Amino acid sequence: MATQTKASAADPLASLFVATRARTTVLAEPLSDADATVQSMPDASPAKWHLAHTTWFFETFVLRDHVPGYRPFDRAWHYLFNSYYEGEGDRHSRPQRGTLTRPALDEIMAYRRTVDAALSAALPMLDAGARALVELGCHHEAQHQELLLTDILHLFSLNPLAPAYRARAGLRVAAVPEPLAWIEGPTGLCDIGHGADDFTFDCETPRHRVHLAPHALADRLVTNSEWQVFIADGGYRAAEHWLSDGWAWVRQEAIEAPLYWRGDMVFGLEGLQPRDPAAPVTHISYYEADAFARWSDARLPTEHEWEAAVNDARVGQMFGRVWQWTASAFLPYPGYRRALGAVSEYNGKFMSGQMVLRGSSHATPEGTSRTTTRNFFPPTARWQFSGLRLARDL
Amino acid sequence: MATQTKASAADPLASLFVATRARTTVLAEPLSDADATVQSMPDASPAKWHLAHTTWFFETFVLRDHVPGYRPFDRAWHYLFNSYYEGEGDRHSRPQRGTLTRPALDEIMAYRRTVDAALSAALPMLDAGARALVELGCHHEAQHQELLLTDILHLFSLNPLAPAYRARAGLRVAAVPEPLAWIEGPTGLCDIGHGADDFTFDCETPRHRVHLAPHALADRLVTNSEWQVFIADGGYRAAEHWLSDGWAWVRQEAIEAPLYWRGDMVFGLEGLQPRDPAAPVTHISYYEADAFARWSDARLPTEHEWEAAVNDARVGQMFGRVWQWTASAFLPYPGYRRALGAVSEYNGKFMSGQMVLRGSSHATPEGTSRTTTRNFFPPTARWQFSGLRLARDL
Amino acid sequence: MATQTKASAADPLASLFVATRARTTVLAEPLSDADATVQSMPDASPAKWHLAHTTWFFETFVLRDHVPGYRPFDRAWHYLFNSYYEGEGDRHSRPQRGTLTRPALDEIMAYRRTVDAALSAALPMLDAGARALVELGCHHEAQHQELLLTDILHLFSLNPLAPAYRARAGLRVAAVPEPLAWIEGPTGLCDIGHGADDFTFDCETPRHRVHLAPHALADRLVTNSEWQVFIADGGYRAAEHWLSDGWAWVRQEAIEAPLYWRGDMVFGLEGLQPRDPAAPVTHISYYEADAFARWSDARLPTEHEWEAAVNDARVGQMFGRVWQWTASAFLPYPGYRRALGAVSEYNGKFMSGQMVLRGSSHATPEGTSRTTTRNFFPPTARWQFSGLRLARDL
Amino acid sequence: MATQTKASAADPLASLFVATRARTTVLAEPLSDADATVQSMPDASPAKWHLAHTTWFFETFVLRDHVPGYRPFDRAWHYLFNSYYEGEGDRHSRPQRGTLTRPALDEIMAYRRTVDAALSAALPMLDAGARALVELGCHHEAQHQELLLTDILHLFSLNPLAPAYRARAGLRVAAVPEPLAWIEGPTGLCDIGHGADDFTFDCETPRHRVHLAPHALADRLVTNSEWQVFIADGGYRAAEHWLSDGWAWVRQEAIEAPLYWRGDMVFGLEGLQPRDPAAPVTHISYYEADAFARWSDARLPTEHEWEAAVNDARVGQMFGRVWQWTASAFLPYPGYRRALGAVSEYNGKFMSGQMVLRGSSHATPEGTSRTTTRNFFPPTARWQFSGLRLARDL
Repeated sequence: MATQTKASAADPLASLFVATRARTTVLAEPLSDADATVQSMPDASPAKWHLAHTTWFFETFVLRDHVPGYRPFDRAWHYLFNSYYEGEGDRHSRPQRGTLTRPALDEIMAYRRTVDAALSAALPMLDAGARALVELGCHHEAQHQELLLTDILHLFSLNPLAPAYRARAGLRVAAVPEPLAWIEGPTGLCDIGHGADDFTFDCETPRHRVHLAPHALADRLVTNSEWQVFIADGGYRAAEHWLSDGWAWVRQEAIEAPLYWRGDMVFGLEGLQPRDPAAPVTHISYYEADAFARWSDARLPTEHEWEAAVNDARVGQMFGRVWQWTASAFLPYPGYRRALGAVSEYNGKFMSGQMVLRGSSHATPEGTSRTTTRNFFPPTARWQFSGLRLARDL
Repeated sequence: MATQTKASAADPLASLFVATRARTTVLAEPLSDADATVQSMPDASPAKWHLAHTTWFFETFVLRDHVPGYRPFDRAWHYLFNSYYEGEGDRHSRPQRGTLTRPALDEIMAYRRTVDAALSAALPMLDAGARALVELGCHHEAQHQELLLTDILHLFSLNPLAPAYRARAGLRVAAVPEPLAWIEGPTGLCDIGHGADDFTFDCETPRHRVHLAPHALADRLVTNSEWQVFIADGGYRAAEHWLSDGWAWVRQEAIEAPLYWRGDMVFGLEGLQPRDPAAPVTHISYYEADAFARWSDARLPTEHEWEAAVNDARVGQMFGRVWQWTASAFLPYPGYRRALGAVSEYNGKFMSGQMVLRGSSHATPEGTSRTTTRNFFPPTARWQFSGLRLARDL
Repeated sequence: MATQTKASAADPLASLFVATRARTTVLAEPLSDADATVQSMPDASPAKWHLAHTTWFFETFVLRDHVPGYRPFDRAWHYLFNSYYEGEGDRHSRPQRGTLTRPALDEIMAYRRTVDAALSAALPMLDAGARALVELGCHHEAQHQELLLTDILHLFSLNPLAPAYRARAGLRVAAVPEPLAWIEGPTGLCDIGHGADDFTFDCETPRHRVHLAPHALADRLVTNSEWQVFIADGGYRAAEHWLSDGWAWVRQEAIEAPLYWRGDMVFGLEGLQPRDPAAPVTHISYYEADAFARWSDARLPTEHEWEAAVNDARVGQMFGRVWQWTASAFLPYPGYRRALGAVSEYNGKFMSGQMVLRGSSHATPEGTSRTTTRNFFPPTARWQFSGLRLARDL
Repeated sequence: MATQTKASAADPLASLFVATRARTTVLAEPLSDADATVQSMPDASPAKWHLAHTTWFFETFVLRDHVPGYRPFDRAWHYLFNSYYEGEGDRHSRPQRGTLTRPALDEIMAYRRTVDAALSAALPMLDAGARALVELGCHHEAQHQELLLTDILHLFSLNPLAPAYRARAGLRVAAVPEPLAWIEGPTGLCDIGHGADDFTFDCETPRHRVHLAPHALADRLVTNSEWQVFIADGGYRAAEHWLSDGWAWVRQEAIEAPLYWRGDMVFGLEGLQPRDPAAPVTHISYYEADAFARWSDARLPTEHEWEAAVNDARVGQMFGRVWQWTASAFLPYPGYRRALGAVSEYNGKFMSGQMVLRGSSHATPEGTSRTTTRNFFPPTARWQFSGLRLARDL
């Protein structure tokens, strides 16, 4: 441990690794073995699976591939905790993840500790390629930290007892939403995408040029109280606001409010709470965001417009509140190349049928979302911390 | 406790209650909180649910309805642990039972202890009607004891780690199946159904007369080795052996062996084990049983033939091995009346789309299956301890 | 033609064949090519298919198998018009029958004429076995005549223009239903099933003995006006009347009246017409029949009770109105053997998941339903001319 | 008729109307009433429906809204032949279109003639707004002409008799595909979209500026013989070529060749024919096009790159062969506004979950596809005349 701490002190990657792994452990603390085991829907994963899969990532792509003599914790787990890497062979069926009552939560935690120790010990000897995988693994785990929370929230939301994941931090004073202001964005050629040397996901590259038409962005997010007006105005019952697929979805699923609204209350990580009218609306699908924007005689921003605005101090709430649906499909940037090697399946193969969200949410680990980050989900997804910001043509 | 023990000593119903409840507790001992929480398929229930629902039965129909001043353990649980009693109002959706990570297993066990204490204390004061409900509750719980095992087995069967519910009792010597003998059954008028004063489920009554044509029953059950011959002979691939619905099911589900066969092994409560060729085949559907019988140039016995043979000492393996599919649909006996009152929904409303199984299995609590017991499942059900005995016309 | 007419005169089988085939042609007359082509649901077949399949039956089992040198009308059609005979090899998928816009209706009619001529010419030379197949083919075609009508009615019922298959015969005077009387049936041993030498389907044999408990049957069928009372009394909204599967079905499908009721009107072969209160209710499922009976504090008769009453002149409306759901599952009689040879798949393989209907409907060709006829459909089927008669225990 | 012809001569819109309507009639000539009635899958429509709906469009948006005193041909048909216009009220369920055996094909043709006469008579009196709707209706009908062919082809492809829609024009000499050449496209700023005054669909506007990175396009389409190499190389069995959703689709649907390939033959409007190795591959989905491009170490062009190349004479086969899948999602152009009024639902509401195809096919009516035309279908659609052209980054 002394060595490891020293390494951490000397090596920012070691610090990142230790901090990332520790944060996951903290997130899992409120969960019972049962909480961590159940899968609430095929799109969600059990917390235990998040805990194990992020560990599997380090064990497989770093320890197995780059540390001579490493002995796997348990060979059978390789099959269990692969997510979607076809190159890694067969894997446990995604919708069956919730049937794994064994290994138990404490066995998973022991797995984490073993891999942590092995990786911390190996870190000083790793070459640049392996170190890049460690860094990727940390960012990968940061993504799963948020997913662990979204998935636990969904699970708890199905329980009529409405359990709280954590206690409420203190009194909240219901605020009045600020009036919305329109901020004109840059017009003409802009450079978009990640161009620096620090960490990025492949889908954020290459940096490239786009041409923007005249437009403006709202200086803040859409709030619960504004959404309440949309509902009161029959927004969920008027076809003209909706995309055709969205309208079919609203009727099929009998959607009439954001996912976790319960009367005047809202269900969240702190259980059932009164709804704050000034807080950004969240747990809405792309279809709902798009319909709200059309009802508002506005539209969603493109991801380029969003990124071009990110350094404009007048445009607030870009990070740390809710992810913001954009009008952009998740597609490759010009000149995009998939990452090579083990992690080549990371992003590119999901570039179909999904819309881009930008920014970050209150559940995104600090420092892990960049101005160029492209989050993505299908247009019906609602269990993420997703909201919207309005835009319009000028 | 002293009082309770005394009551038990004096009152056979108290003894039955205490023994029944204790046996369930023993069955749950090998299970973790997670094991007890997960629902492996809509037809199965979590162990925690079995533990709570059987308790709910006593709390609702005895304590609430017959013990003045009884205060429910938790009002919200009434909704959670009702199974299918429409008369008891809304209830938690059956396929969602596995989302209840809370209450935790130890809370459920505390619920059990509280209700046990209240019911044991109340028992001496209960009238005959309430006592009948206690007796029914014990038989109801015995049924759930077997279901708890079938459901846990199904859950564990989905886990690639193949966990064992219990340790194996000792060495088994692979036996050679006995040659099968045909035992002629009684012909002409027979009395069928429960006619005595002791406990019975409503569907076993009234006792009534049927006319049997000449027939014979096998003196033992069909074995694993015989089933292996059926497979080797292409039994699962030849339409002519199968009912039309059965053939569609076999192809749709790609069925090619009993549910838990794994190569030469079989998965069971003791984990993955070599298959005993002389043991009765089990975990087969009605469609499979029927096809095997036709392939054998025989048929399944009717439930009347089975019951008429039950006292013939030459016909073996009637109880305690596997439930035996019969050729009889689960329908009311002539003159059948549903039970009155709270428990009127017990059996009658399920008399559609199900086939009768007779006997009992190794997982059936001793003393709880009668010669008149009618178990019933849909023709595709395989996760029960179900096998078959052959019959033929004479 | 002279020969054929002579043969008909001399040979009752030839007369039966000619009359049966001619009746089908008459039934098809009101249909356009399009009417005869479309399949309204997987359970129904296009009229063209009925016309061709019944012809295929004679061509395959008689001409091909028993007439040396017979050349098939079109080899490709063998594949198209096999219904479910596994022994006859691959066949066109049932739910795809409605995609066959070719061959056209007039080609099918030409096929019919060709086969008719060939079979009439061959008939005098056929041996007893082949003659039995001709007779079976006629009864088979009679069944399809009724199905052609039920399927066309279902197709037309989906058309918002409400087309009529045939003109209305004349004015109907709305009658007042007769008061219902209970007729006591025979008790004790009865012989059931077909025992004579004339034509029968295999499932009606062998004749065998059953024991009947004391019971009574209604002297007439349940009427539309009685069903209206059931609806007005909330019959479709009260779980206690329903089998569990039936209740799930009612809610899932939002069932609230017989299939073709439209307000105060009813859709039928004569288009949309006022509903006759005294007419037998029809187009109900087994679940509905069973629920109505329970709501009436009665039950459905068993098929044995129905057959035992058939010669009792006091029990009316046994034939020619609507098929009558019974409380009996469609299962083999004691000693039942499947027919041998080509037609061995006729009935036996459907003995699962279906309930027996007895009698006949107004759409059943005269003279083709026997006292022993066992019609059968799944408990959710409503598009047949199905109604009910009440029974009760004494 | 004399007047009408004169009007045609004088008025290009009248000519367009008459020519468009006549071409549809010609396309329907080979179809029987049954051919024109059946719906082969929910995504396809019956020919009769195309014939009626295109007529409904003129009747509703021109005659009803702009010709005083016009009396509808049949009020019930308004409900039957609305496609998706929510603003026009309830409409017949899309997947039920194939149940309409009535009205018959000749009634639909009479409807066409009546509306044609009324519209031709009214045309000289119509104002500019109404005339714009007539022009839109003609372009709308041109789209349905192609759909009528794709839908009939799909229907006939399901028929084991493999009927031909039309006779083959003459002998085809199997050609050797030309070697493929890469043509560099323009880099930097380009203007995209429709900017002139002539007819266009709303989704092609406004004309706007985009920035293109260095790239090249293939000078011709991908051929059948090249696709055969892809198959032989295991292209359909190697996950690494596929988008994640595409891979799931390939396995779920057991896709292993273009939709209408049958061994060495291909099914088409001329029935089953030998496959021309040099012809452009067609009837492939976006997922297949994308996988082929990745396997080729290339990519699909964006719709901007495609449009920027359209006047480069070196890039061949842009029109009249097969529609070309692009890498672009169907999304609004910057500054896009939905058309106003009756036809506001034309394109905008479909801007979700679809990919853009550019060019036109051999089934596209001549003169109806522009350099700016944006066709769009979901990524799994294969029944259109869809193929691909390769692109790559420079």
